[in-house]
Amino acid sequence: MAKRADILERFGKRVRELRSDAGYSQEGFAAHAGLDRTYQGGVERGQRNIALRNVEKIAKGLKISVAELFDGV
Amino acid sequence: MAKRADILERFGKRVRELRSDAGYSQEGFAAHAGLDRTYQGGVERGQRNIALRNVEKIAKGLKISVAELFDGV
Repeated sequence: MAKRADILERFGKRVRELRSDAGYSQEGFAAHAGLDRTYQGGVERGQRNIALRNVEKIAKGLKISVAELFDGV
Repeated sequence: MAKRADILERFGKRVRELRSDAGYSQEGFAAHAGLDRTYQGGVERGQRNIALRNVEKIAKGLKISVAELFDGV
């Protein structure tokens, strides 16, 4: 059985999908959400053990709840 | 209008409720989930900007998804 991807990777993939579906470039979304562009890239690549305050910034930037942001993660 | 509680406080309250409903003491749950007891206390008091890997430990300790852990938060 394949190992399930790490939670950071699963979360990053989810963020990338939602951000892209919302029509934002990575850089545009980072500016919109108040995050650094390189930080946003690291989150999407599953390289950041992101904490709650920044998770909330992403959810707000996407206009969804934190629970919805984690849906399927 | 009253200011909505900070996300760390809302998350901490949610964790405290679920942990208590599951029949765990704070110390017992921390040991079960693999977290430090004082860290768990800080999370429940909304004093910790908890990151994803520890959020996942709490969800696993409660046998729920991360999305469910954030339900209503």
